[in-house]
Amino acid sequence: MPDQRNSAPSLGVCYYPEHWDEGRWPADLQRMRSLGIRYVRVAEFAWSRFEPEPERFDFSWLERFLDLAHQEGLAVVAGTPTACPPKWLIDSMPDMIALDEDGLPLGFGSRRHYCFSHEGYRLKCRQIVTRMAEAVGAHPAVYAWQIDNEFGCHDTALSYSPTARTRFRQWLRQRYRNIAALNHAWGNVFWSMEYRDFDEIELPNRTPAEPNPAHRLDFRRFSSDMIRQFQQVQLEVLRHLSPGRPITHNFMGGFTDFDHFEVARDLDFASWDVYPLGFLASVPFFPESDRKHFLRSGDPDYGALHHDLYRACGRGRWWIMEQQPGPVNWAPYNPAPLPGMVRLWTLEAFAHGAEVVSYFRWRQAPFAQEQYHAGLHLPDGQPDAACAEIAQLTKELSVFDGETPERGDVALLFDYEADWTIAIQPQTVEFTYLAEVVRFYRALRRRGLNVDIVPQGGDLTGYPLIVVPPLPIVRPEFVEAVRRSTGLVLFGPRLGSKTAHFSIPPNLPPGPVQEFLPLRVVRVDALPRFAPQAVHWNGERYEAEIWVEQVTGDLQPLARLEDGRGVLFRHGRFLYLAALPDARWLGDLVKMVATEQQLPLMDLPEGVRTRRFGALRFFFNYNPHPVKLAPFEGLEFLTGGTDLPAAGVLIGRRKGR
Amino acid sequence: MPDQRNSAPSLGVCYYPEHWDEGRWPADLQRMRSLGIRYVRVAEFAWSRFEPEPERFDFSWLERFLDLAHQEGLAVVAGTPTACPPKWLIDSMPDMIALDEDGLPLGFGSRRHYCFSHEGYRLKCRQIVTRMAEAVGAHPAVYAWQIDNEFGCHDTALSYSPTARTRFRQWLRQRYRNIAALNHAWGNVFWSMEYRDFDEIELPNRTPAEPNPAHRLDFRRFSSDMIRQFQQVQLEVLRHLSPGRPITHNFMGGFTDFDHFEVARDLDFASWDVYPLGFLASVPFFPESDRKHFLRSGDPDYGALHHDLYRACGRGRWWIMEQQPGPVNWAPYNPAPLPGMVRLWTLEAFAHGAEVVSYFRWRQAPFAQEQYHAGLHLPDGQPDAACAEIAQLTKELSVFDGETPERGDVALLFDYEADWTIAIQPQTVEFTYLAEVVRFYRALRRRGLNVDIVPQGGDLTGYPLIVVPPLPIVRPEFVEAVRRSTGLVLFGPRLGSKTAHFSIPPNLPPGPVQEFLPLRVVRVDALPRFAPQAVHWNGERYEAEIWVEQVTGDLQPLARLEDGRGVLFRHGRFLYLAALPDARWLGDLVKMVATEQQLPLMDLPEGVRTRRFGALRFFFNYNPHPVKLAPFEGLEFLTGGTDLPAAGVLIGRRKGR
Amino acid sequence: MPDQRNSAPSLGVCYYPEHWDEGRWPADLQRMRSLGIRYVRVAEFAWSRFEPEPERFDFSWLERFLDLAHQEGLAVVAGTPTACPPKWLIDSMPDMIALDEDGLPLGFGSRRHYCFSHEGYRLKCRQIVTRMAEAVGAHPAVYAWQIDNEFGCHDTALSYSPTARTRFRQWLRQRYRNIAALNHAWGNVFWSMEYRDFDEIELPNRTPAEPNPAHRLDFRRFSSDMIRQFQQVQLEVLRHLSPGRPITHNFMGGFTDFDHFEVARDLDFASWDVYPLGFLASVPFFPESDRKHFLRSGDPDYGALHHDLYRACGRGRWWIMEQQPGPVNWAPYNPAPLPGMVRLWTLEAFAHGAEVVSYFRWRQAPFAQEQYHAGLHLPDGQPDAACAEIAQLTKELSVFDGETPERGDVALLFDYEADWTIAIQPQTVEFTYLAEVVRFYRALRRRGLNVDIVPQGGDLTGYPLIVVPPLPIVRPEFVEAVRRSTGLVLFGPRLGSKTAHFSIPPNLPPGPVQEFLPLRVVRVDALPRFAPQAVHWNGERYEAEIWVEQVTGDLQPLARLEDGRGVLFRHGRFLYLAALPDARWLGDLVKMVATEQQLPLMDLPEGVRTRRFGALRFFFNYNPHPVKLAPFEGLEFLTGGTDLPAAGVLIGRRKGR
Repeated sequence: MPDQRNSAPSLGVCYYPEHWDEGRWPADLQRMRSLGIRYVRVAEFAWSRFEPEPERFDFSWLERFLDLAHQEGLAVVAGTPTACPPKWLIDSMPDMIALDEDGLPLGFGSRRHYCFSHEGYRLKCRQIVTRMAEAVGAHPAVYAWQIDNEFGCHDTALSYSPTARTRFRQWLRQRYRNIAALNHAWGNVFWSMEYRDFDEIELPNRTPAEPNPAHRLDFRRFSSDMIRQFQQVQLEVLRHLSPGRPITHNFMGGFTDFDHFEVARDLDFASWDVYPLGFLASVPFFPESDRKHFLRSGDPDYGALHHDLYRACGRGRWWIMEQQPGPVNWAPYNPAPLPGMVRLWTLEAFAHGAEVVSYFRWRQAPFAQEQYHAGLHLPDGQPDAACAEIAQLTKELSVFDGETPERGDVALLFDYEADWTIAIQPQTVEFTYLAEVVRFYRALRRRGLNVDIVPQGGDLTGYPLIVVPPLPIVRPEFVEAVRRSTGLVLFGPRLGSKTAHFSIPPNLPPGPVQEFLPLRVVRVDALPRFAPQAVHWNGERYEAEIWVEQVTGDLQPLARLEDGRGVLFRHGRFLYLAALPDARWLGDLVKMVATEQQLPLMDLPEGVRTRRFGALRFFFNYNPHPVKLAPFEGLEFLTGGTDLPAAGVLIGRRKGR
Repeated sequence: MPDQRNSAPSLGVCYYPEHWDEGRWPADLQRMRSLGIRYVRVAEFAWSRFEPEPERFDFSWLERFLDLAHQEGLAVVAGTPTACPPKWLIDSMPDMIALDEDGLPLGFGSRRHYCFSHEGYRLKCRQIVTRMAEAVGAHPAVYAWQIDNEFGCHDTALSYSPTARTRFRQWLRQRYRNIAALNHAWGNVFWSMEYRDFDEIELPNRTPAEPNPAHRLDFRRFSSDMIRQFQQVQLEVLRHLSPGRPITHNFMGGFTDFDHFEVARDLDFASWDVYPLGFLASVPFFPESDRKHFLRSGDPDYGALHHDLYRACGRGRWWIMEQQPGPVNWAPYNPAPLPGMVRLWTLEAFAHGAEVVSYFRWRQAPFAQEQYHAGLHLPDGQPDAACAEIAQLTKELSVFDGETPERGDVALLFDYEADWTIAIQPQTVEFTYLAEVVRFYRALRRRGLNVDIVPQGGDLTGYPLIVVPPLPIVRPEFVEAVRRSTGLVLFGPRLGSKTAHFSIPPNLPPGPVQEFLPLRVVRVDALPRFAPQAVHWNGERYEAEIWVEQVTGDLQPLARLEDGRGVLFRHGRFLYLAALPDARWLGDLVKMVATEQQLPLMDLPEGVRTRRFGALRFFFNYNPHPVKLAPFEGLEFLTGGTDLPAAGVLIGRRKGR
Repeated sequence: MPDQRNSAPSLGVCYYPEHWDEGRWPADLQRMRSLGIRYVRVAEFAWSRFEPEPERFDFSWLERFLDLAHQEGLAVVAGTPTACPPKWLIDSMPDMIALDEDGLPLGFGSRRHYCFSHEGYRLKCRQIVTRMAEAVGAHPAVYAWQIDNEFGCHDTALSYSPTARTRFRQWLRQRYRNIAALNHAWGNVFWSMEYRDFDEIELPNRTPAEPNPAHRLDFRRFSSDMIRQFQQVQLEVLRHLSPGRPITHNFMGGFTDFDHFEVARDLDFASWDVYPLGFLASVPFFPESDRKHFLRSGDPDYGALHHDLYRACGRGRWWIMEQQPGPVNWAPYNPAPLPGMVRLWTLEAFAHGAEVVSYFRWRQAPFAQEQYHAGLHLPDGQPDAACAEIAQLTKELSVFDGETPERGDVALLFDYEADWTIAIQPQTVEFTYLAEVVRFYRALRRRGLNVDIVPQGGDLTGYPLIVVPPLPIVRPEFVEAVRRSTGLVLFGPRLGSKTAHFSIPPNLPPGPVQEFLPLRVVRVDALPRFAPQAVHWNGERYEAEIWVEQVTGDLQPLARLEDGRGVLFRHGRFLYLAALPDARWLGDLVKMVATEQQLPLMDLPEGVRTRRFGALRFFFNYNPHPVKLAPFEGLEFLTGGTDLPAAGVLIGRRKGR
């Protein structure tokens, strides 16, 4: 059984035994071993092979595969097949289908067509996972479990089914106890939306005007809870029938439709699926200039942000369960990565602490939905381009021997509810939570700082710098964590602007954070992208964009708009940004606070990023052209040099260690 | 009881007693009075408080509020709560819900979810209004009534419900008497759309190709009639049970889904809801350059056009029922107005003859859908920015003492059916009726002319200049009004291009207007915005855009295309524009005709507008920067001077009065 | 009875007797004759007049019309009225309505609201066509039949009705015999999409992720077959009851939702409906610069491509059933054509071999949906602009006397399945099949080459040059045809990239074409439009765009990317383009291969095109300005000269003939 990450990290691969003739298995597994792969993830879409007819189960083929894997010394991550209930099951309980926001049913014929709330489906999932765990849960090749696959993918986290409605009413009853409390909490008097009973409450869809935001927020929370409950059914079975095997779920990038901290809390480690080129092509907020420049390498910060996020979700333990190994198939366009990019992405993940990077997939599927998705091998079995990069990697991974990660320079707050709250009432279409987190993360990473992501309840002590992107709903545990922190805290706008029930706090924003910041936000100027506002700070002219707050109080502003109103305030170790800063302003602001806290700032060329891991320091060139790094003191070069080719990586170790 | 507008106009405010602790009412009302507010509008969303359970009514809280208001000398506009039927009511007659164009039901949880055609709901509305009028209709504080709220808001004027279908069939039966007449009028033979009976007729939705335009136009007329009928039920009750109180409805800006002239005909005065910044950000036809320049002031003509429109709807009596007092919440982005802009907007409304400007709302709501909508006060009760501007205003309003409005320089025709007709068959996506009305209105207002809006049946005598934007369906009463007029008439294109049954007139366009203009339109060149056509007129080169007609007849053209075809014709006092003119051409054309008619032309700086009211003349600076006006003769300055700051207003009075 | 096309071609017109008073028929028909029109197409929307009540038939009016036409010597094309089932029929079998992709029913009130799969509707169609053929099938004026009208128009080729589902299951059962074969062919194991029975299979709509592409492709094939079956019911009746009359259907431009080769295979000749200005304004892939330049003439190649396509569909015999005679009504904007353009379009069609060009329509309809669609006459009966051009044409058509068309210089492959396959999995949103066919066709036509369109099963022998745009699914008959060909073959990318069951071929792309090209495509770089890739060929720099393949094998590349990888390969007489070439590169490539094959290349001014027909050579000026052609040797000018006005046509005849 492989160790946990405290020595060299490992490689894995996703393999679908059911997709190939059984006769190919032995050679595939031998080649995996020879390529240096240690983990094989299987079975998460195989329900129709586990239960081809109702109540006729067959796990024998998986057992044969596990035997072979075990012989090759490979460790298997077994996936529960609940993302793909087969047609006969749908036909036996048609109301398990999810309904979209228009109330129309989803169709069978791809995946994720089920509703998380459906009790019958939950029972059926309990059964299939029980049978599977009984069959292979004790097999020596089974190292770990993955539950389902990419919860919420294809916009399925929210279902507007009658079943969801019934459970939502129950959930609300439990939360509010009596209907008057709910009416008051939601402000239902506003448009005669008051209910006489929980059973009068509908799901918040298809209303002529926007639904009550408190209604929507509770529906988001409920939907997130449904996913957690859905997963718990399987967790309980697996813990009982396959003890000692860690359990994970593979989360997605750029996906915030449920609370990943909550859903990951029940898991032993987190994992996520990394598609840098697909992300760059499809995430709406990247500008076209970036889409073009980083076409074949991906945004230099987006993946790193997620690494740090899932390290937090996994409480230190996390994997890459799927790593893009070449062009993918699902984005609006799907370019090939730069040569060397698969290696770079893999090293970036390990430099952020990943235990395993597992490539999706072993062999390109010649049939069905993902035919244009590259694998490590072509459909005919020949190695694809990534194989050579993996061969190089397996020789390089020993640099990690004995290194352990250190606490980051900066704690960056991340909160799923913040995303929902802003999405429900953005006030300007330009404002999306994830884009703002990227704004702050990018500014820190461009200065060479190591960032730790922290949820609202997380510990902030020991961080010299704490950065809080827009956080509308501030919870008591966060106020307590800030109280106990000692670092400089840079708060972004929209802070404390809503109560837990989606109201403006009685003392106005930043609500409970007024404990640290004696100011009140009295007005919001929510702008289109084409109307940035000039800002003056330290004798320089910058720009605020999209969101500018009007603040009252006695603090002298550090930065001002043209009309003299303040947009940056400081009170002791607390700074408040009352506007969204452009990249140059935020960059200079980060420089100022990091310098004050004596953090290890770097001046990096455009498109180059760095990361420290133990005594190691990595430099990653995301540019499609070579760059020359400035000379270093105190760094022993292990791989590469200051002349970084396109997609090049320089690995150094602190001297005098 | 306040007088009708013939002395200084008054201020009002929208207040929701049911949203606040009863203990706050007295202080709120005292402060209203001290701010100079005379009118309070209440109750239009309070059904769930008037009838918390089926048939259990409670108006006592409103009576207590009215008592307090009366003590403070405030006059109340009481709203009927029919825009927000409560959930228990929906559950008791689920088919009262409106259906969208896809035939899918709207959901409960916001407002306006009902279908205007539903008899059960109409009966229920009659009951609640009866009970309300019985309870408070004779209360001395009740000055006026408002019926429902913003008919048609959130795209609800058209409902595709079975109920609507049934009533539509009845409506058609009444209109056409026999089905052969309908088949002939609609041209149903065209694609075998002939019906054997009225009960075969469906609503015009979800057809693979476009539905018959005559079918759609009649459905628009029907839907407009349904709103009028819906309102009449309540009018009848209120006139009976609360005699002597004028009745209004608050209409919207930029909204043409029903015939406001018709619906307002039954009312005692009109009112409308003014959101200049929201309009600029959301109305599709404003160019981005304007969106940016007037970001914090709103389009300088759009609000004014509506003032003139609703003065016409109200036959001289009209209010602003809701005036934007700061940032709003519902546009794609929501900037803050320039300091001084609330005052400017208010004075602009009064300069157009508004009796009352009522701000929406007294206090920003900290809960539910409109939390980001500013009020006169912050959620915590402190005054927001607009309060200071209102304080200034209350001192200035005495300038209006003794002034009475005069007839405008120009009559501008406005017709709701024209909007529907063009929307049903635009022939180029660039053509929208409202944009064209703005085109003509703006050209007039930029020359400093006072405009009166006139409907097709309206009196045109006495106007030296009459401007007719695109008017496809010309009604006999309009022909008669033109016949009796004596001014210069400038007709726009598309004139008389359709009969009442949406056909091409037998004598070709301009149909009945050939009585005044001996020409025939034989072809239309419907263009994309990127292909304007050069026009030569008076030795200058201009452009026609979007729509160019080919005209035959004996008239010599005044303006010609490159190929020599005419696009501007004159016959006696009648001018015909056979194309849409660009701003420069139309500006020069207005100058020519206004000069000929000796109208008081002005040369105004960009972004500045003027308005005469009795002996008063106002100048409004909509620019975000100061401007210097040219010196004036014959004007005594009451407020401000020729150096107009951003958002500044100069008020002068004609000397020697 | 008119001859088949081997002498001068003829003109026709679309006429709707049921739309006009019977008293107007004689004069209309006389004027047709005097204008030189020989064919009149009637009746395709007249069901409600043929069967005004269920089972009450009336063809007497049509008989009277035919008598009159016969007296005038006009030949009639009689349309079956099945595109417009009347309301009483829909009400009698409501499930004959087609359902859209959301599963929602289409509405009555326009046309094409039926589902092709519905057995009841097929039976009813058999009856109405039987009755019609019995009534007029032997009438001497009836020259030909047209079945239905524009199959699939308004997105109706695919219906998601329960009826379609039932028939689809039957169709699949017939195709695959047992469900295991289907599961294997589709790769249903991929996401547990395996079925136990054909009756478990749903239509491929509303799936959360994309449906299985093999599932979608079979649904496309099935839907195409339904149209063919639907047509066959009527063909059988007409062949039996109206023998000797050729039968056609009028297809559309830019429409690929069913296989026109297959549906036309059962017909005696093909026909299509030509709207050059509407196409240019609405087809998504034309750039705005072209939309502006050719605003009033239409794309200079798009119509010509379709002429060649429908000549292939009709196996040499084809008509224009509807020719745009002025502005139309259905595009986003609808400009007027250049003076002379109707003549140019008509001559272009005849130069491609059309037997008849029939104008849509005789007189502009003053009512219902198409009021803005110009005709040959205005609604009041006066001649519209096209009449003069037709008068000129009738004098010119004798140039065709004795000329017969020759085989083209180039065979260009066209395949409907290729369109479906690429649409189902484009891999980049920029890739559409029709745009790529236009890319290749345009390059050939700009060099003055005559192109023949050939389907996969078509004969390629004798063509010196064969061009194959992207052809994912290569069928054995095509491989055989290539084998037997002797010309130079230029293959485009994506060739042979899918099997018949939508899988990657076991030997990788180009699959079976590896017989001719020893190379394998191992990766695809699917790009956004903003990231073209530099290509070096023959010492020049060009660009590849949208799609670049990575190829392995022993062939030396002729053209290379910056990184040295090949994108153009040659093996004997076979060339393979592994990327989409920009216009300049493709133009030079065509020049090279055409020169090698000694084809008659021309250097034409921008916007000018040429076409040879027998001994005739035509030059068409699509520009809105005059051009001067280079002097010619060996050409006798019949009409016009080298100074071509806007919309001008030069007709010459080879000297020494």
